[in-house]
Amino acid sequence: MSSLLNHQVILKTRPDGIPQAEHFEIRSTAVPELNEGQFLVKNLYLSVDPAMRGWVNAAANYSRPVALDDVMRAFTAGRVLRSRHPDYPEGTLVMGVLGWQEYALTDGSTLRRKVSETDLPLSLSLGVLGLNGLTAYFALMELGEPRARETVVVSTAAGAVGSVVGQLARKLGCRTVGITGGETKRQLCLNEFNFDAAIDYHQPELGAALQQACPEGIDVYFDNTSGQISDTVLTQINKHARVVICGTASISNWDPWPQGPRVDRHLLIKRARMGGFLAFDYENRYDEAVDYLAPLVRSGELRYREEILDGLEAAPGSIADLYKGKNLGKRLIRLSAD
Amino acid sequence: MSSLLNHQVILKTRPDGIPQAEHFEIRSTAVPELNEGQFLVKNLYLSVDPAMRGWVNAAANYSRPVALDDVMRAFTAGRVLRSRHPDYPEGTLVMGVLGWQEYALTDGSTLRRKVSETDLPLSLSLGVLGLNGLTAYFALMELGEPRARETVVVSTAAGAVGSVVGQLARKLGCRTVGITGGETKRQLCLNEFNFDAAIDYHQPELGAALQQACPEGIDVYFDNTSGQISDTVLTQINKHARVVICGTASISNWDPWPQGPRVDRHLLIKRARMGGFLAFDYENRYDEAVDYLAPLVRSGELRYREEILDGLEAAPGSIADLYKGKNLGKRLIRLSAD
Repeated sequence: MSSLLNHQVILKTRPDGIPQAEHFEIRSTAVPELNEGQFLVKNLYLSVDPAMRGWVNAAANYSRPVALDDVMRAFTAGRVLRSRHPDYPEGTLVMGVLGWQEYALTDGSTLRRKVSETDLPLSLSLGVLGLNGLTAYFALMELGEPRARETVVVSTAAGAVGSVVGQLARKLGCRTVGITGGETKRQLCLNEFNFDAAIDYHQPELGAALQQACPEGIDVYFDNTSGQISDTVLTQINKHARVVICGTASISNWDPWPQGPRVDRHLLIKRARMGGFLAFDYENRYDEAVDYLAPLVRSGELRYREEILDGLEAAPGSIADLYKGKNLGKRLIRLSAD
Repeated sequence: MSSLLNHQVILKTRPDGIPQAEHFEIRSTAVPELNEGQFLVKNLYLSVDPAMRGWVNAAANYSRPVALDDVMRAFTAGRVLRSRHPDYPEGTLVMGVLGWQEYALTDGSTLRRKVSETDLPLSLSLGVLGLNGLTAYFALMELGEPRARETVVVSTAAGAVGSVVGQLARKLGCRTVGITGGETKRQLCLNEFNFDAAIDYHQPELGAALQQACPEGIDVYFDNTSGQISDTVLTQINKHARVVICGTASISNWDPWPQGPRVDRHLLIKRARMGGFLAFDYENRYDEAVDYLAPLVRSGELRYREEILDGLEAAPGSIADLYKGKNLGKRLIRLSAD
């Protein structure tokens, strides 16, 4: 059993912008022996997240760049296969930053949590009950502070984070307006994620469409895009609006900072607030988010979409698509369970 | 006595940018009789504030523009001269938005507060104990949330707001760094307002000077300028920094919004917050600010500078100078007391 072979996706060259398949390669290596206090996780699902772009770029970011020749940093969900750690017996389901690889040896420090909602699919621990759900929940609640009857606008509204934000805000009694790309996703926003209104940002009159969808202005803007979409939304915020900066997907290079309209005078006049959010700051509160979200998933009140690719070899090319707006639902890589 | 003549500064033409003397004219008109519930205030001090630029411009702002041929909107401090209002007997000292004029008839709705700290000069009720002190106090406390040992950077640090912000932050145990224009004001920041460091923004290496003055980065940026000064400061903020947008003095025209570096990605990476402040939102909490500030003025812990011009005819040209950075201290117009 010690001769297990581990396949890993490693970062081969550093992309300048969006990571493509060619920036990675798959390597085989033997799984090492366990030391006392370690355990071996067999990854069953690998997460594919927009944030990965930032993780591999050399420019200063919120976390150290993934080193060349290192396993690609990624959230994964899996099962403990062997253990010399009393807290993680064989069979334990776990979620953590275990990388794009089949097996991960850890002492637990790279784990985020044990997955206790075993009645639900394990894949959810990477999506609606994972980083995406955590992000939606804390960014909306802590930075957005939505109140009943307010209007909440969400960009990338059909995405893994945006769709949860919209549903949570609606549950709190807000009017929810989703901005997304294309008619398919617009319908998804309306029919699956229950947004009160949904707007395709490709249309020529985004400002007018937004005005129509937000007759009482915008109180919370949950932004995943930056760029021209945000510029348009910002002109329509209300007094004391909250702008949550959760992602900046529409801009692929921030070095140097791109130019755009200065927002400070507008924030002053509106006494509005703009705040940046990173889920990492809330990782010790994962359980709180899961406790809130899991019952909503069980009752069917909180819907989600997954887009599952099969096999480790699907991983290297899986990030770039996210930036083309191609995917419908949280993107995951499924590894074989045997 | 009913034949009192009132001299008023009226807005004659609407400036495109900074208001100059030529945009105003002085008019004489008879003081009307008092109706029941009214009282007549003799203005003793008129305030001159940077915010006045926004009040007279036609572009959308936080308050309705002053109408052409109307008395120029302004904070004033004065004494009740005649009264048919039980709450405001003759002799009461008051502060309010009574306009650039010698006499103001009011039912009290345009007042901000009665001045009860009669041991201190009345002029202070327009400066360190007026809009400036209120702004400094609430913007710093509520939006800046300074904590001991943090670094607080203030732009227009020698000004009526900035100088109070610096002194309050230092009292809270912060390292305070002032940015100002010219050596005279820089010395004022250091020697009069007790900033730990002060920087002349004219110098060619603002970024390097700031880095030297803020070896542990910047936790709170209290901004009164916008523009390139702010662009430089923002690159040096720490994680979880708070940026208080209190004024935008370095940019004279916001219609259309000028271009600058997009800040959203930076706010995200730093999990920083940028919030706009207007003192109007805190007007019902004036007493709280005065209760905090007045004892500090009495004890000499909170210093202030005034620059007093004499006579109503000084008013029309008094705003433009503020934008040349010429004034040292809170600018006021003193009217004769007899």
